[in-house]
Amino acid sequence: MAIIVQKFGGTSVGTPERIMNVARRVIEECEKGNRVTVVVSAMGKTTDELVGLAKQITSSPSKREMDMLLSTGEQVTISLLSMALNALGMEAASFTGWQAGIKTEDVHGNARIMDIDPQRVREVLEAGKVAIVAGFQGVTSHGEITTLGRGGSDTTAVALAAALKASRCDIYTDVTGVFTTDPRVVKNARKLLSVSYDEMLELANLGAGVLHPRAVEFAKNYAIPLVVRSSMVKEEGTLIEEEVSMEENLIVRGVAFEDQITRVSVIGLAESLNGLPAIFASLAKNGINVDIIIQNITGNGTANLSFSIKTEDLEKTIEVLEASRKALGYGKIETETGLSKVSIVGSGMVSNPGVAAQMFIVLADNGIRVKMVSTSEIKVSVVIEDKFMVPAVEALHDAFALSGSEIHA
Amino acid sequence: MAIIVQKFGGTSVGTPERIMNVARRVIEECEKGNRVTVVVSAMGKTTDELVGLAKQITSSPSKREMDMLLSTGEQVTISLLSMALNALGMEAASFTGWQAGIKTEDVHGNARIMDIDPQRVREVLEAGKVAIVAGFQGVTSHGEITTLGRGGSDTTAVALAAALKASRCDIYTDVTGVFTTDPRVVKNARKLLSVSYDEMLELANLGAGVLHPRAVEFAKNYAIPLVVRSSMVKEEGTLIEEEVSMEENLIVRGVAFEDQITRVSVIGLAESLNGLPAIFASLAKNGINVDIIIQNITGNGTANLSFSIKTEDLEKTIEVLEASRKALGYGKIETETGLSKVSIVGSGMVSNPGVAAQMFIVLADNGIRVKMVSTSEIKVSVVIEDKFMVPAVEALHDAFALSGSEIHA
Repeated sequence: MAIIVQKFGGTSVGTPERIMNVARRVIEECEKGNRVTVVVSAMGKTTDELVGLAKQITSSPSKREMDMLLSTGEQVTISLLSMALNALGMEAASFTGWQAGIKTEDVHGNARIMDIDPQRVREVLEAGKVAIVAGFQGVTSHGEITTLGRGGSDTTAVALAAALKASRCDIYTDVTGVFTTDPRVVKNARKLLSVSYDEMLELANLGAGVLHPRAVEFAKNYAIPLVVRSSMVKEEGTLIEEEVSMEENLIVRGVAFEDQITRVSVIGLAESLNGLPAIFASLAKNGINVDIIIQNITGNGTANLSFSIKTEDLEKTIEVLEASRKALGYGKIETETGLSKVSIVGSGMVSNPGVAAQMFIVLADNGIRVKMVSTSEIKVSVVIEDKFMVPAVEALHDAFALSGSEIHA
Repeated sequence: MAIIVQKFGGTSVGTPERIMNVARRVIEECEKGNRVTVVVSAMGKTTDELVGLAKQITSSPSKREMDMLLSTGEQVTISLLSMALNALGMEAASFTGWQAGIKTEDVHGNARIMDIDPQRVREVLEAGKVAIVAGFQGVTSHGEITTLGRGGSDTTAVALAAALKASRCDIYTDVTGVFTTDPRVVKNARKLLSVSYDEMLELANLGAGVLHPRAVEFAKNYAIPLVVRSSMVKEEGTLIEEEVSMEENLIVRGVAFEDQITRVSVIGLAESLNGLPAIFASLAKNGINVDIIIQNITGNGTANLSFSIKTEDLEKTIEVLEASRKALGYGKIETETGLSKVSIVGSGMVSNPGVAAQMFIVLADNGIRVKMVSTSEIKVSVVIEDKFMVPAVEALHDAFALSGSEIHA
């Protein structure tokens, strides 16, 4: 008998009625002869409500106590889903993170899973019941309750699938799958029937938002096939696996984009081996994510450094840089806000050196100036002005032939 | 340094503002040089809301899943109280039942505490912090979450006080202490400054309602001094300990009462050794609590049996008796509803044989007919008509000199 892990997010379990719907979905999978483990998030707005309670007490709650507080959200959902399955005649048992043996590092608010000992889950599955596990939470070796941070429930589902040697992990969400680009923005966006882990990683990192990159990485490392599909609409989703099945791959499989980008330039940086590490270590320590980094030498013994950040981090970035001005010895800082990042993604790019050039041509044809460029084996990203973001996405989507009918890998 | 356990009920922690007040109370106790462990219930209506959610799913949720669901209520409170203490500059750490080592029997919904291993709580206290423990919940040897049923948080507090060898357990509630009778009914009711465990047990069992009998029994077994006091009003409470401190005890220390009582009589019961056990075993199996039991032999080889129950259990009681009519071989069943029970309680009674007689005289003087009588070493209970309940309580309260100024034990 195959083991399937299903994960349902907060919207899918937002009301008792929706929880009954989820229970029906679970039973359908059982009726195919599979053993099912379900991972769920907190109901709809529960997490926000709990955060609101904490804020009424203090503006700076300890992370340990926030984990204690927030982990109750999933615990409510697992018990209700178990009751719903019982009510529909299916035996089930729910487990909190610590009961399911989800062991994390000793960090609060954003812990990583170190190990899973799913003995109790396995016992329940072997007894022919459905096992329900609280997503987003785990326990340290000292018995402290931890939460996994953003995308935590996706990660729980994938990690559990790996530990249980599941044949598949289905991520039920409020979209029907992974698209060539955001269908809310580009009318011609098409659902992909399959993508590779790496492509999904780039799409997820680039704001496609369906699935958290941590979960995709985990799935890739343990070769767990993932399916992203809708909990509301019955329709085939997108399969994410090692290699897409047919050779007739499209070179570019998706266009991702993200606004609210700022470029920061540090001009006249004294040339020394320690400059770069010092800057980026300080920024990382302050929780600022740096994306694209470009450095060039001016020829007069100094360097100019540019990097892109989220605009919301601008103030803090300037603070950090000013604080280490003397140690770094740079001339001045320049910033440019109102920028966006647009990326094309596809594993076919590796063997098609002309793809970046084609992207630049399409942008130039549309009168769009490129401010920064970054490339990886399966991605080319450009930073452009905000106002050009949507036209650029649309032009690239058309140019790379993504706007056809549904794309079969 | 003395260890004090404080327990705050649902009303006392009903809002974030009240939780801040509780935190101030905790800090006051710390400032006296004591180490403090706090046990809390779920916030105000939380438990009702969770039960409401479950009812939207199914009318008969499994007890295991109800425990999983309800135990989240206290977990929310402990984290918020810990945050509140932090915000006021006091270090604290919260613990769920399983984290605090509260081990229960393998029963859901109404588990008894088997053992407590409060190692983590002790470590926190030794580090000079406040330990906060979720009341009402524990864990089985198989790692299953259980709840303790009615009065569970009181029991958690007392059991933890025993395990920590605390010098005192303070039960903060919405009344200022234990009274000679219900102050909402009898204007002259007076607060007792101390009572013995046994007196408190009788008062608690008789509907004084301040403290659950299970918690009092636990305190008696482990000789933990209990104090019942108000979380709102700053005023000395009632101390419950082994022996009240002065010899000049009042013989009667309280008058308890309870309405909605029904007398059930089984007439012409075949005289056999098995009749009584059979009846009461069936009633117990159906969750019906029997209070006073009277049996007398008629002389013609049959017996008449009377017992009192809560009126709400009448229908079920008749059902149970009818179902075993053949096996028991009785003539008929008679019932009388609209009754009340009034009891006088006091450990001084043991050495004062005239107390029951004095009670009957007071009642007779007031024209009140006694329907049933039951006595213990420290209690005399009578069943009378509902309409006489309050006059009987008032007359007894006066007659036994309880209506003076505040009573110092």
